[in-house]
Amino acid sequence: VSIEMDPIGFVRTEAGKVPRSWRASDVEGALVVDEAYKEGLGDIEPGQRIVVIFNFHESPAFSPNLLRQTPPHRRQGPPGVDRSMGIFSICSPVRPNPIGMSVLEVLGVEGNVVHVRGLDMRDGTPILDIKPYLLEDRRDSQG
Amino acid sequence: VSIEMDPIGFVRTEAGKVPRSWRASDVEGALVVDEAYKEGLGDIEPGQRIVVIFNFHESPAFSPNLLRQTPPHRRQGPPGVDRSMGIFSICSPVRPNPIGMSVLEVLGVEGNVVHVRGLDMRDGTPILDIKPYLLEDRRDSQG
Repeated sequence: VSIEMDPIGFVRTEAGKVPRSWRASDVEGALVVDEAYKEGLGDIEPGQRIVVIFNFHESPAFSPNLLRQTPPHRRQGPPGVDRSMGIFSICSPVRPNPIGMSVLEVLGVEGNVVHVRGLDMRDGTPILDIKPYLLEDRRDSQG
Repeated sequence: VSIEMDPIGFVRTEAGKVPRSWRASDVEGALVVDEAYKEGLGDIEPGQRIVVIFNFHESPAFSPNLLRQTPPHRRQGPPGVDRSMGIFSICSPVRPNPIGMSVLEVLGVEGNVVHVRGLDMRDGTPILDIKPYLLEDRRDSQG
């Protein structure tokens, strides 16, 4: 059974190139959310981090030979050594379902637009969801 | 333009009830991944945490009156006070796109099955993606 989703909005940025990961990005831009969902942006505050779930809309189709891939940071070193990793252990944009996830810093919210820093998504990327960044709580509570 | 996705597998657990959040869950179970994707599970190791993106398959349809909701932990206190929050600031399973995200602890991997702890998904939940848990890196490097 296929699951069908419609974007809640799109990424806008003037950056021609974006870093491969939000962890290494200072790129600024905006999440332009559909007017119909504007009210749902309430309580998003500047300085916060948010989790953005998006669609790798420019990725080629997935195929079985991509179940293992060698990420860029492992491509150096002596030849003849297999440095590939399972697709579910890496962040490659070419994966069985083209879903991406980034943690972005909120610069401000104006109406249906969230200004953000840390983009690793290209201009025009469809946004599927925005979630609060609560991921560290358990680790913290475990001390 | 709708985006169509097929589950890569399903959650299996004998727990009749699961906590609302993985942050408060010790429930064990399994991610049973389609045999076709088994090779992609390589490099997932016991003790690791993984990010699981899934489909809230039992959620009712979203409607505009749900753009603000009052999460359970805010439902107490004097009446007449609006404690609702924007949908994109809370983890409610009833959201514009029914996508969930949990951080689970890996207990072990056997073939196409990942045994996990920390489930907040019900038995039969469709899994859309598994990603490495790398979310804290930036905070740490800024720390």
